[in-house]
Amino acid sequence: MTLRKATHRSPKDPCHMDIQALRKAHPEHWMRAAAIRTLTLDAVAAANSGHSGMPMGMADVATVLFEKHLRFDPKAPHWPDRDRFILSAGHGSMLIYALLHLTGYEQATLQQLKDFRQWGARTAGHPEYGHMDGVETTTGPLGQGIANSVGFAIAEEILRARYGSSVVNHHTYVIAGDGCLMEGISQEAIGLAGMQELGHLICFFDNNNITIDGPVALADITNQSARFVASGWHVIDIDGHDPDAIDAAITAAKADPRPSMINCKTHIALGHAAQDTSKGHGALTDADQLQAAKDTYGWTYGPFEVPADVKSQWEAMGKRGAAAHADWHTRFAKLSSAKQDEFNRALALDAPKKLSATIKAFKKQVSDAGAKMATRSSSEKVLEVINPIMQETVGGSADLTGSNNTKTSDLGVFSPDNRAGRYIHYGIREHGMAAAMNGMVLHGGIRPYSGTFMCFTDYARGAMRLSALMEIPTVYVMTHDSIGLGEDGPTHQPVEHLAILRATPNTHVFRPADTVEVAEAWELAFTSKTTPSVMCLSRQGLPLVRTEHKTKNMTAQGAYVLADAENGKRQAILMATGSEVSVAMAARDILEAEGIGTRVVSMPCWELFEAQEESIRKRVLPGGPVRVAIEAGVRLGWDKWLLGERGRESKAGFVGMDSFGASAPAPILFEKFGITAEATAQKVRDLLA
Amino acid sequence: MTLRKATHRSPKDPCHMDIQALRKAHPEHWMRAAAIRTLTLDAVAAANSGHSGMPMGMADVATVLFEKHLRFDPKAPHWPDRDRFILSAGHGSMLIYALLHLTGYEQATLQQLKDFRQWGARTAGHPEYGHMDGVETTTGPLGQGIANSVGFAIAEEILRARYGSSVVNHHTYVIAGDGCLMEGISQEAIGLAGMQELGHLICFFDNNNITIDGPVALADITNQSARFVASGWHVIDIDGHDPDAIDAAITAAKADPRPSMINCKTHIALGHAAQDTSKGHGALTDADQLQAAKDTYGWTYGPFEVPADVKSQWEAMGKRGAAAHADWHTRFAKLSSAKQDEFNRALALDAPKKLSATIKAFKKQVSDAGAKMATRSSSEKVLEVINPIMQETVGGSADLTGSNNTKTSDLGVFSPDNRAGRYIHYGIREHGMAAAMNGMVLHGGIRPYSGTFMCFTDYARGAMRLSALMEIPTVYVMTHDSIGLGEDGPTHQPVEHLAILRATPNTHVFRPADTVEVAEAWELAFTSKTTPSVMCLSRQGLPLVRTEHKTKNMTAQGAYVLADAENGKRQAILMATGSEVSVAMAARDILEAEGIGTRVVSMPCWELFEAQEESIRKRVLPGGPVRVAIEAGVRLGWDKWLLGERGRESKAGFVGMDSFGASAPAPILFEKFGITAEATAQKVRDLLA
Repeated sequence: MTLRKATHRSPKDPCHMDIQALRKAHPEHWMRAAAIRTLTLDAVAAANSGHSGMPMGMADVATVLFEKHLRFDPKAPHWPDRDRFILSAGHGSMLIYALLHLTGYEQATLQQLKDFRQWGARTAGHPEYGHMDGVETTTGPLGQGIANSVGFAIAEEILRARYGSSVVNHHTYVIAGDGCLMEGISQEAIGLAGMQELGHLICFFDNNNITIDGPVALADITNQSARFVASGWHVIDIDGHDPDAIDAAITAAKADPRPSMINCKTHIALGHAAQDTSKGHGALTDADQLQAAKDTYGWTYGPFEVPADVKSQWEAMGKRGAAAHADWHTRFAKLSSAKQDEFNRALALDAPKKLSATIKAFKKQVSDAGAKMATRSSSEKVLEVINPIMQETVGGSADLTGSNNTKTSDLGVFSPDNRAGRYIHYGIREHGMAAAMNGMVLHGGIRPYSGTFMCFTDYARGAMRLSALMEIPTVYVMTHDSIGLGEDGPTHQPVEHLAILRATPNTHVFRPADTVEVAEAWELAFTSKTTPSVMCLSRQGLPLVRTEHKTKNMTAQGAYVLADAENGKRQAILMATGSEVSVAMAARDILEAEGIGTRVVSMPCWELFEAQEESIRKRVLPGGPVRVAIEAGVRLGWDKWLLGERGRESKAGFVGMDSFGASAPAPILFEKFGITAEATAQKVRDLLA
Repeated sequence: MTLRKATHRSPKDPCHMDIQALRKAHPEHWMRAAAIRTLTLDAVAAANSGHSGMPMGMADVATVLFEKHLRFDPKAPHWPDRDRFILSAGHGSMLIYALLHLTGYEQATLQQLKDFRQWGARTAGHPEYGHMDGVETTTGPLGQGIANSVGFAIAEEILRARYGSSVVNHHTYVIAGDGCLMEGISQEAIGLAGMQELGHLICFFDNNNITIDGPVALADITNQSARFVASGWHVIDIDGHDPDAIDAAITAAKADPRPSMINCKTHIALGHAAQDTSKGHGALTDADQLQAAKDTYGWTYGPFEVPADVKSQWEAMGKRGAAAHADWHTRFAKLSSAKQDEFNRALALDAPKKLSATIKAFKKQVSDAGAKMATRSSSEKVLEVINPIMQETVGGSADLTGSNNTKTSDLGVFSPDNRAGRYIHYGIREHGMAAAMNGMVLHGGIRPYSGTFMCFTDYARGAMRLSALMEIPTVYVMTHDSIGLGEDGPTHQPVEHLAILRATPNTHVFRPADTVEVAEAWELAFTSKTTPSVMCLSRQGLPLVRTEHKTKNMTAQGAYVLADAENGKRQAILMATGSEVSVAMAARDILEAEGIGTRVVSMPCWELFEAQEESIRKRVLPGGPVRVAIEAGVRLGWDKWLLGERGRESKAGFVGMDSFGASAPAPILFEKFGITAEATAQKVRDLLA
């Protein structure tokens, strides 16, 4: 095929980049940047895998950023008022590892660079949050970093409004490539950041015109600068290898009240034989070509060797932040001690001491004789008592505020005019919302929760998985959690989504049965430090089933006996979650009336139940003639509980869905799909027969 | 908060829309459009749920489109050369139902409108493909329709190139709202369409400035026109209530070689008390307000009543296409009979007769003694023999062509210069790719398959679910299907994704063990008419395990005995899929050598196994002392097979993952995570002890 258009230059043009002119124009800068390039080449060669070209292309930008602008202190990598540096183009992980090593982060040893991509090393193939100080977020799935960065910038705005700019006043820098910008999530991030006027957010676009399959024009002709401008961003186009232009652009970006995008024309794998080609995207391991690149750079040192003068220049950058950091402590000490405590508590993800008592009091007040209430409404009531005592919570919705019930009365709306607002209208952007929430948690000081219809966890999956992988306590409020959604029909009715969430490691999937369990689930979600929570909530009204034992947080056990066999010997155990717990209770009434002793086990969180000791699990689910699970979702996963963990305990049945749903009023759907008390009772009778 | 910016007009401005002036300027048009508005109001009122405002806002655009431009024949709703009309803003389903009813589609009876959103009606809450002729795709999850429409337009270009413009020459029209355009998938669609210069694609943007939470400016200030222009679209801004402007814009759009976006300023719920408010987005059921709106319209008729003169004007539009349709048949008859047969066969989704023999011959030729081969490479080899005999296949990748092995030698690359190309560089756009593939299948005449890393099914989930819900045979090639991906690390290693796919109704999840099973899986994928297929393929090389019984398609049974106990009585059954089947075979060697009779069951497709008769399932998985499953993914779902469908048959063990993966060379990962033959053998020994 002929390439018809190139965004900025034709990929067919031979590259006339004059490396020697670059060296000559800025000799010291050149060597600093060359240190990144050569460490990258050496580490990828040692690993015999990785992505060389991106760090080599963006070395100049990163060098100028770290040298002249980034506020950081390698001796205190968690300094709350540091600038954040995010590598959205995570495959270029050697860029960040090289930077952290050169500037003196303790964990970024030379040995770590030599162990790049090996078992047990901190230097994973893609930057993994929690593995190495200075890696602010896990990136690799493209577009996540730029969407995280919006959350970082929102968190900074909120905390600045709350604690003052003497304590919170930093920038979020993010490097995004063509891949990030082609992913849809980037549009969600760009749109949200533009509307919110996140002036402390600065995005570098690594405009190297190359993707894995070839020139960008194979798949895209988008003028990225124009696209950002269309969403309200400040945009500057520069040569990404000109240190003066880079410096000036960052200075201008910091001065502009809008979020800034610096469109950096770069050459992937600069100076290597693979420069400006898709081959340059991958692992450049050929020894002769590697040496030739070093020769071109004027780099006469051995593998992983950085000459002392260059290293000392980098170390000086690392030391530059210490004074600013010390100053910050002086300013922080001027906050009231209550403010300081609150700041530190939120940063440590500690829940306030009174949370537990507040939840207990709330549960006690729940009226046993009240009207039916949807668990999404219960959730709003719980948030009404939590939000006032946890200033760190920030609620939101992907344009379903009234349906997700996530907005409580005291929050205020976060906007360019109200940075103290604690409610975010994310727009119809589930994926961007989830990634922004991850960014807020990672920034620290904020506990975000936000909602959409549970079916649209599909749209947010990419970011939800990263919450789990990063071990951060993002909270997802997923309402309309079954066919109980009704008339909107199968596109909006989750069927497989409970299984999807349960299949994901390190995710607490809460499906509370009533107001009491909702309160307990929220307490657990807001005390978690390392596990994201998904609140699966009903659209339809549900009766209160937890009329006893309200003091203890039974949801913390994952599953518990809600009602036991009264009438003689236990013959059946009914297991259920959420809206189907009341179905199980009604089925129990039928069965007990027939003389069939029936236990009902509510299972609001499988993962917490799995974490219990075997003796507890056995007490809740002892062997017995019959077990029936009731859940308005697919059976996948239930067999573990139905058939017994050690197998063979009971005959098993399932009342739920084995297809997509349909469009009709909810009560009719439960009838038609056979998720009723009578169908459950009949299943028990059949199995006992 | 203060609304700072509005995209096009401030939502605070009172609406000065002069309905009476509109009526007066175009009285006949007005009444035609009013028929849509009133049918919408009446149907939503009858259902007491739904979305009134969108059809009321876009009634003028739709009326002009159907009256003056859309080529369709209600008597032949599947006419291959019809224009396609897609309602991406699917919540406005009453717009499409009203249009189909008014123009005389047989299935769109008045009773169906009266039964809107009721059990068994064709008029689901959101338009469901397959429920009613004229609904070209299922919409509701926002952004899907606009992304489908790109696939429709690509299919049209490819078929036009192949069969000539006398036979294929139609337009794809799509209506998208703010919701669609805020969703990230829309950017992927816009970028792909712009680069591909899809001139027969015309998108109407229902620019009503309202979302559920309030004015668009609550969450977005994007200049949508500028955004489309940035990606190479032709854009026209019009008043969406001016029939002359609408007509002129469509005419201009058809004449332009680029895809066109017509930015229609509209008033949601036009003429109703809820006009221009977010309340207008939902169900407008208040009887007095409903009557007042009808009065404003000058509509003096009863509920669901359309006066004869208005109805006859609509019916005339419906009849307009008959002549064009007849002419088309004359032109089609001029194609060679071979071409006609091919066209009809592809449209019917019939595989060519020789597919089965081709696969059989391929399997026969597979060398039993060959080197290890990754199943992604096996897949390429199979496609090399299939693509030449199935002209309807169109391959692609989300920028991982060399990794997904989806491009065979004869395909050519689809581009503005080569419409005959059968390979698509989708760019880094997994979600848009999946939705575009759905669009191609729905258009007809194309069998698309395309790939990414299996971990990024996460990004494509929204569209993959719709393949299953719509019952269309889209094929997803998901390579790098486990920790076997190696150094790229946990962000790129699927762990929960097999469970996710298996949880989704109507999805065939193929995880073939070797080249023979890969060939069988492809045969099944390309003969399926109503079920999407996911090919889960390894990065790493795998030995051939199916050295016998190559003639029959054993994968069609879902699971089968690959090797049985040789040494005495069967004591253990090892179940495995994909890359772990060879692990199971090696474990069997160990166990048999120890005198432990061991059967290995390969389970390349659970869903097909579930569909077998119980006697077959029992023959493959009889009761016995021990069952162990081996799969480099989470256990969720395996208990069904481990514990026995009727429970209690065997002691059970699982060798697999219970956490995310890690970054290291693949062989080390399998060792560290304990997915080895020796670990499997030990599990059997432990269970037998």
